[in-house]
Amino acid sequence: MILYGYFRSSAAYRVRIAMNLKGLKPEHHSVHLAKKMQFRDEYRAINPQGLVPYLIDDTDGHADAFALAQSLAIIEYLNDLYPDPPLLPTDPRERATARSIALMIACDIHPLNNPKVLDTISADFGMTDSQKTHWYCHWINQGFSAIETMLAARKIHSRFCVGDMPTVADICLIPQVTNANRFKCSLDKFPHVLEIYHHAMTLPAFDAAQPSKQADAEQPNRQPPGRAAEK
Amino acid sequence: MILYGYFRSSAAYRVRIAMNLKGLKPEHHSVHLAKKMQFRDEYRAINPQGLVPYLIDDTDGHADAFALAQSLAIIEYLNDLYPDPPLLPTDPRERATARSIALMIACDIHPLNNPKVLDTISADFGMTDSQKTHWYCHWINQGFSAIETMLAARKIHSRFCVGDMPTVADICLIPQVTNANRFKCSLDKFPHVLEIYHHAMTLPAFDAAQPSKQADAEQPNRQPPGRAAEK
Repeated sequence: MILYGYFRSSAAYRVRIAMNLKGLKPEHHSVHLAKKMQFRDEYRAINPQGLVPYLIDDTDGHADAFALAQSLAIIEYLNDLYPDPPLLPTDPRERATARSIALMIACDIHPLNNPKVLDTISADFGMTDSQKTHWYCHWINQGFSAIETMLAARKIHSRFCVGDMPTVADICLIPQVTNANRFKCSLDKFPHVLEIYHHAMTLPAFDAAQPSKQADAEQPNRQPPGRAAEK
Repeated sequence: MILYGYFRSSAAYRVRIAMNLKGLKPEHHSVHLAKKMQFRDEYRAINPQGLVPYLIDDTDGHADAFALAQSLAIIEYLNDLYPDPPLLPTDPRERATARSIALMIACDIHPLNNPKVLDTISADFGMTDSQKTHWYCHWINQGFSAIETMLAARKIHSRFCVGDMPTVADICLIPQVTNANRFKCSLDKFPHVLEIYHHAMTLPAFDAAQPSKQADAEQPNRQPPGRAAEK
């Protein structure tokens, strides 16, 4: 298996967590999003959408490899192929709730804060850095408010969003909290979210998947001599 | 079952198609998005995220009803409970591809063109109507380009995105085409997308779910006398 990703991509981070939970060890190929490598013809020939994560799977017994885009589709696919441990509850209501929380992040927070969107608003409407931070935290605040309300209303207090084992909901939530922290968005109003985050980060599968621990992570204080600082 | 929706919401349109395909007949409760009814306390008390669609299910044998947000979570839930006809292929690769196309629309096109986003950019950055149309068609063009490339690369020509039966991919694609048409975005470069759209619209499940056929659809030429025109 090959996983095309980027240390800072929170969608790639989701897939890294899922693969860690399942003990899968793909080859990691880094696509440098900040240098816009995803839009180059070489990468478009691999993934026409020009996004990460992107999975190439040659483990499912077919003669040809299978290529798959979209983090949540990849996670469901891996869960179908490698069901242990499950990343979705077996109860239909709980399974639906886990998917619903995952989608509240994947559809209603993350896309709005994607670099391609921020870049477009900056280019077309002159968004300043402080407006960018405001925009970023606004959508996190809106999405997390709904998730916090849902979590607080659940009758049984659990260690993860839906039960005591991580599901696709936590796999989406934790990278989104990492992003919120990077932009210094206040999360004080979301105690359930923070409790789940802090618990998750004690697990090796979540910890090892975090951006700063990836091979392609930028090391701001360890620039090789003579190399210009990257933005 | 109750489905909270709005005739013009393409996420609600997805769920309407899925329910029609499965022969489910919910009570439709309209939440007037253009009048911002989704942000009122009455609706927030029902759905804290303040979005449609929202499903209330009392058919699954529990004493209490189950509430569920997010169109794709609702569709997967209905598919779990009412498996016939299936809205996902049985082959893991095909199933993953169907979900991937659905998510390319649900995560990478639709959220960026949501009224709440357009309203925010208009309010904060003075987006004009012509800039709004440009923005709208830009994200459709980008997303559909990737989907068209995927569809064109598939070895077997099929009537729907993945095979000859509608899946969650088509359930997302058709409402997105409807939106593109409403904003007069050119779709000439997407012949596979258009072929699937035209075929789908011959099916009663898709046709009956379209915005103009909903009970809450605005009828611009059939205003009751004395009623002020709505924006």
